[in-house]
Parts: sequence; C-alpha cells; structure tokens
Amino acid sequence: MSNLKNDLFLKACKRQPVVRTPIWIMRQAGRYLPEYRYIRKKYDFLTMCKTPELATEVTLQPVDLIGVDAAIIFSDILVIPEAMGMNLKIIESKGPVLYNPIRTINDIKRLKEVDPAKELKYILDAVSLTKKELNGRIPLIGFAGSPWTLMTYMVEGGGSKNFSEIKKFIYNQPKAAHILLNKIADAVADYLTAKIRAGADAVQIFDTWGGILSQNDFQEFSLTYISKIISQIKRKDEPVIVFCKGVHFGMEQLANSGADVIGLDWTMNLGEVRKKIGNKVALQGNLDPTVLYAPKEKIRKETVRVLQSFGKGNGHIFNLGHGIPPDVNPENAKALVAYLKEESKIFHHRGTKS
Amino acid sequence: MSNLKNDLFLKACKRQPVVRTPIWIMRQAGRYLPEYRYIRKKYDFLTMCKTPELATEVTLQPVDLIGVDAAIIFSDILVIPEAMGMNLKIIESKGPVLYNPIRTINDIKRLKEVDPAKELKYILDAVSLTKKELNGRIPLIGFAGSPWTLMTYMVEGGGSKNFSEIKKFIYNQPKAAHILLNKIADAVADYLTAKIRAGADAVQIFDTWGGILSQNDFQEFSLTYISKIISQIKRKDEPVIVFCKGVHFGMEQLANSGADVIGLDWTMNLGEVRKKIGNKVALQGNLDPTVLYAPKEKIRKETVRVLQSFGKGNGHIFNLGHGIPPDVNPENAKALVAYLKEESKIFHHRGTKS
Repeated sequence: MSNLKNDLFLKACKRQPVVRTPIWIMRQAGRYLPEYRYIRKKYDFLTMCKTPELATEVTLQPVDLIGVDAAIIFSDILVIPEAMGMNLKIIESKGPVLYNPIRTINDIKRLKEVDPAKELKYILDAVSLTKKELNGRIPLIGFAGSPWTLMTYMVEGGGSKNFSEIKKFIYNQPKAAHILLNKIADAVADYLTAKIRAGADAVQIFDTWGGILSQNDFQEFSLTYISKIISQIKRKDEPVIVFCKGVHFGMEQLANSGADVIGLDWTMNLGEVRKKIGNKVALQGNLDPTVLYAPKEKIRKETVRVLQSFGKGNGHIFNLGHGIPPDVNPENAKALVAYLKEESKIFHHRGTKS
Repeated sequence: MSNLKNDLFLKACKRQPVVRTPIWIMRQAGRYLPEYRYIRKKYDFLTMCKTPELATEVTLQPVDLIGVDAAIIFSDILVIPEAMGMNLKIIESKGPVLYNPIRTINDIKRLKEVDPAKELKYILDAVSLTKKELNGRIPLIGFAGSPWTLMTYMVEGGGSKNFSEIKKFIYNQPKAAHILLNKIADAVADYLTAKIRAGADAVQIFDTWGGILSQNDFQEFSLTYISKIISQIKRKDEPVIVFCKGVHFGMEQLANSGADVIGLDWTMNLGEVRKKIGNKVALQGNLDPTVLYAPKEKIRKETVRVLQSFGKGNGHIFNLGHGIPPDVNPENAKALVAYLKEESKIFHHRGTKS
C-alpha cells in the first residue's frame, strides 16, 4: 500500500487491519511545545507558515517528541483567503484578523482565483521538504478549512462570538453566499490536489464552524461544498478526512460525502456513531482535549474509555476531539500517546504486518 | 388549572391540548428592544435587576410589545454567586466578571449559605410586583443557572473561550468540585422554591455550558445536580423547564431528570427528539435565533419548518434555540410571534377551551 515504515494511520483510514490503533493530535505542532515556542519567539506566525524550513521544523517536532503516527504540515486555514487577496494578520493570543471583510457581491468579485503553484508555493515547498525529512517514517497529512468555515472568517473579518455578520449574509444574500462558497471550494480543491502532488499522504478538511448552523443550513451551506471538494480533489488512494466541530446532527450525511474518515468532537458517542456509519467510513477521535489537564491515571482511564467506546476492530484513528490546548504539559501528551500504544493492542486481532 | 386568561404555555408544559402553540423568547426582555435600551441608558444592569420597579418594567415590555404567551422575570443567573459572597460586575458589551474566582477548597468554604428571603429579596419582590402588574394575563417564569454553569463562571471568573480553568478544576480537584456543586444546587433549589412562592408559575434552569462536557462528565458534573434541584424544589404543579445548550447527547437522560419540559437548541432535530422522549416531557424550541436577521418571508418559512418538525399534537412550546440576539429588529420578533400564532393552529385539534 505504501513504502512507509509506519503506515498504521493510512491503514486505519481505509479500515484495514492494524496491530494497534494509530494516533495523531490536532494542533500537535503548536504552542504547548516549548520547542515550538522557542521558534515562535523569533518569528511571527505567518512567517513560520511561509518559510518552508521553519514550517518543516515545527511539523517534525511532535513526531520526534511525542511519538505520533502521522505528521500534519504546519500551516493555517486562512492562507486561502489570503491567497484570494484578503489582508490577513494572525495575533496568536487574540486570533486572526481579515481586513475589509466580505459583505457584498462586489467584494466577492474582487477576490482572485488562486493558483496554488504560485500564491501557495511556500506550503507546497514545505510539504516536499517535510516529506524528505520524514524519510518514510510516518505519513504526512495536508489540510484546509471547509468553504463554510473560511467564508465565516471572511465575512466576520476574523473570529466571532455570535456570528451575526455571517448569518445576516447568508439569510439576506443567499445567492452571493453560494457564489462565494463555490469560489472557495474550487480554490480548496485545487489546493488539496496540489498538496497531494507535493507529497501529502492524506488530507483533512476542517469545518470548525459547521456546528453554528441548523441541520438544514448545514446541508445547504457547508456539506454541499465539502462534497464538492472531495469529488474535485485529484488523488490516488490518499484518504480524505472531514472534521466538523459540533455537527452531531450530520454524521450520516457526512458518511455519504465521499470522505474516507469522519472526525468526531469529544461530545460525540464514538460507539453510537460507529453503529450508524462505521461500515462506510473510518472514525477519528475523540478524547476531550482538556483531559490532558488531568493527572496521568485519569488520562489513561479516559484513553481506554475512548477505545472501549469504539470497540474492537478496524477503522479507528485515535485523536483528540479538538485541538490540543496551548497550556497542556507536553509530558501529558507524551503519556497519552504511550498509553494509547499500550492499551489499544487488545482491541485488534493480529492484523497484517504493519 | 389556573386563573390565567392565557394559560396556553402552562397547558403545553403539561402536554395538555391547546388551540395553538404558545411562544415565549429567551432574552425577550433585552437589548433588542429600544424601550429596554432607554432604561438601560439610565441604570446599570445590576441596578435594573435589583430595583423591583425596573425589573418589572422590562419584564413586561415584550408582553405588551411582542405579544408572547409567558413573561420571564428580568434577572441574571449570576445573582446566585453574588449572593454567595462573590463580587460581581456585569459589563453588558463584554460579559460578566466574578472577582477572586474559586480555585481551592478554602475558597469554597468562604462562600455563604444563601437565604433567598434576605440576599435575593429584591428578585422575590420583583416577582410579586410583576405578578400584580400582569394581573392574570399570562404566566410568569422564574429562572436560575444550573450548578455546572454557575460553577463554570465562578471558577473561570467570568465567561471563557476555552474553559481551561474549570476543566483543570474538575479533573484535578473532583472532590472540591462536587462540594461546590452541592452547595450551589442547594442555593438554587431554595431560590427557585422562593420564586414559586412569590408567584412564579413555572421555572427554567439554564445549563448554558453543559455542552462543553463529554457525555460522562455531563452526567457526573451537571445532570446529577439538575436532578437534585428538581427533586428539592417545593412546588405544586408549577412546571420545571431545563434548557441545556449543546447537550445533544443527553436528551434521554434529561427526560428522566424530573423536568416537565426540555428546551432544545437550534441544532437539534425537534421531530427526532420528540420520537425519543416526547411521551415523557414537553419540548421547547428551537428556531435558530439568527433567522430573525432574515427577511420576513424566511422567518415565516422557518417558523413553519419548526412546527412541522414537531408535528401535530400536544407538548410543544415554541421558542428560539438560544437567546434573541441584541441587534435583531424588534419588528422581526413581532412578526415571528404573529406568524406562530397564525400558522400553529392547524397543528392542534380544537382542544379544551384556553
């Protein structure tokens, strides 16, 4: 299937047998690591994203320090709006700002078509360099934001507490919203295709804000464009993972989106979701990230609880149910990975050699 | 059942027949009304809570202006931590601040036992005065925060983005957390009993932060104390409503909590939840509040969609799936109420006279 020394992650994505459950951690290349903060002190966030050597270095940190089974290229979902011509600033303690937010059809018309080989070359270079440095140890994941989530940032002009601007936009200018979503979807599909060509072994689509929508609106404004991207990505057998936070109501729909893996947040019941859709897709998740604040024995106990919830058999990738908090002790992340490796064996038959 | 001229709300809470679906709106006495902002300009938020004449005035505003079927006494859930001795400040644009947040067992020991007739007399007076002013037109709802939600504010020291302090607290000091939750539950039960004695016809418990917990943690840290309160409230047939935001995983458990009504946020499928638990409890909800940003025809369409989702029959109280946003045009709230009154008739048999 691949020339990787450790392909547990890719096998689990395809629901193939493995000897133990693989693990990676959302935001594993991030602020909780002192080694990351050391580099971050010298360079701002976007400079790190845009300098392949730096992006590669922080991407590799959790591989060496924490022992995860997949790397995910260090980047940010907002590089797409920036490549479309918006002015982006990321203030790490406060969140991102996109200046001159989109409010009208004319704002949308001014957005540029994205050629990933040009505007996003720096990420493709980071992917190639990271692949080289990984030297076949573990697979590399590329990622992008969903069109709905990116549009939310583009219309709100950054993060939001009550999402009033994006809701006003979709309810009062639904046609403009769909034009923008289509434009973003095309850019994201090309971008993920380019990442795969540059060496990514899998891609994940993050729909951070899908959960602020009602079930009908999710279908209309988010799911449609996730499915569109998946059908447009050019790939061989590189799996596509979709992670929608708070979309408890959309599991069956997501299982039919064309995705290979559905990521679950920590409020979901992994066992129940497996019963519903586990014969169609693999599942990724879903330990409450804040359990990493707990004493180690609690971390072990909750790790086992997640494994038990999924149960025995194929198609589970262990992860947190959201990104790792920046103030977690890295020792606890390390312990989680060690416990998972130890405790997950009994949930698998002796599979094909991996 | 009551001497009220309009008792549709109370009948629906008891799943009795009504001629149309009743409606009230979470945060209906609030900033979206110019009449509210006029008073708010002259007095700060807590002064309004603590002056029975002012609290009564803003409580009555949506009754007269919007045409809802129940009033809810103007107040804030954080009056309980304040009555327990914490120093509270509410900055309306920014949110509440509780100074010297709870972090240790000694902090908990310093909290006072609450006698509602003393520390919260101002709210009981507001309830009595509002009852008098309502003069039997419609029922009056009293409310409180759930112990979990109040503890979250007390430990975080206000609102929070990532809830790291409360999670550290429950995972590292679970015993202290349970002592505090018990203390809050007792105070809330006494408080709601006192509100009923002062004239409230129903009470609602708000669990704003239940949805940040995993299913197991919700049961341990939130549901247990909601059930405890419900069993401790002294009442005749005044219904108890429980509204937990984001607790999609806890519907069956909530239906067994002793509550008469379960409130649903806008991400829930009302029809599916009715199938699961609608023979045990009435359901309240669940229009996406941001639909009130939409043109009126969309508001009507979405109102009908909610009615259709519940379907024909008894036990539905119409509401938004969360509080009304402060920047909604009051005309749209008025239109919602009018559409609901018009469109909901065909969902009911000609019931007992109401």
